[in-house]
Amino acid sequence: MIAVKVSEKSIRRLSHYARCLRLAKLRGELIMTSQQLATNCGISSAAVRRDLSIYGEFGKQGSGYNVNDLLVNIEDILGTTNPPPVIIVGAGSIGCALMDSGLDGTGGYIYDSIFDNDPAKIGKKCGEKIIQSTDEIKNVLEVNNEIIAVIAVTGGAGQQALENLVQAGCKAILSFTLEPLRAPENVEVRYVEVSTELDVLTHSIRRKERVN
Amino acid sequence: MIAVKVSEKSIRRLSHYARCLRLAKLRGELIMTSQQLATNCGISSAAVRRDLSIYGEFGKQGSGYNVNDLLVNIEDILGTTNPPPVIIVGAGSIGCALMDSGLDGTGGYIYDSIFDNDPAKIGKKCGEKIIQSTDEIKNVLEVNNEIIAVIAVTGGAGQQALENLVQAGCKAILSFTLEPLRAPENVEVRYVEVSTELDVLTHSIRRKERVN
Repeated sequence: MIAVKVSEKSIRRLSHYARCLRLAKLRGELIMTSQQLATNCGISSAAVRRDLSIYGEFGKQGSGYNVNDLLVNIEDILGTTNPPPVIIVGAGSIGCALMDSGLDGTGGYIYDSIFDNDPAKIGKKCGEKIIQSTDEIKNVLEVNNEIIAVIAVTGGAGQQALENLVQAGCKAILSFTLEPLRAPENVEVRYVEVSTELDVLTHSIRRKERVN
Repeated sequence: MIAVKVSEKSIRRLSHYARCLRLAKLRGELIMTSQQLATNCGISSAAVRRDLSIYGEFGKQGSGYNVNDLLVNIEDILGTTNPPPVIIVGAGSIGCALMDSGLDGTGGYIYDSIFDNDPAKIGKKCGEKIIQSTDEIKNVLEVNNEIIAVIAVTGGAGQQALENLVQAGCKAILSFTLEPLRAPENVEVRYVEVSTELDVLTHSIRRKERVN
């Protein structure tokens, strides 16, 4: 399944379905209609039915989907069954807050370890984990090169953090930095872009004010 | 300018250009070619030239753009000149880490205040700000209803936080919750989706492994 080329938009929607199904499972729900899945995800039910019909026969019209089976199938399409461990680079306030809040409910992702290059931080605790030296990153990637790294450093140190990760063999990075990072083509970098989301929201509310 | 209907994709790209221009300005750069802007933003230079030509004549072929003028123009198109204040709801680890790391370099956004409904937290400090009761939110919105609220609460309390904000008159919300929130149509809700970004990264690295 996983070698299928799926557009990023579809992946994001499937990820949202998986998230809603996990929450439904936690609430003890066994069956969910496309209408319920749509309402829970904030997507139209026509879009839900279309998405699910593309990837296979997951349920019968009118009888709803088996929550667990659909979740298993969607995770298979996404390739997120037994997801890779996540490491955090940068044990500042954002890095430690991420470690502290954890990844419960995300289908098996866990923050495996946290790294910093500040000798004053190395060896100290951040949540339940001991902060390790960034020199140790290569050892973690030697054992498992499928790891996802979250860059949570500040003040322009993002590019250096990325280069260390790439050198250690990391292929997937989620960055909280404000500045865009340069990476080789075979390394996938995504961003958590609080400032861009704020721009989208500001544009939206101010456009409405002008239109009304 | 701001009443122009711009697609979300364009808004995001313009937001990235603005971010790169601000960083260039900080480095003291006065002029930037479309090629430099493209390299800094990780976008093709053809796309940069196309985007900028849509919105007006910002520079002459070959002579580059005036960094400050282009930034002012892009902020005008985005409607982010003098952006609205941002409040944080939820003074847990994520909320306080956001407050702590601030919004420097985002073109004028600031975290104005932080709220929690836990009496044990109210009155205590988070960064430089005193944590206020969520009952105070309506007073802040009475003074300025253009405020953007960041929901940084955990454990399923997001919907309640959203409803309080909507009742207080808030029209723009950025949520860090895992669960999707239900909001009236006139309220714009966006999400910082760490788990979806992780899914996109996992899909990408595992698809490559299968293809290779």
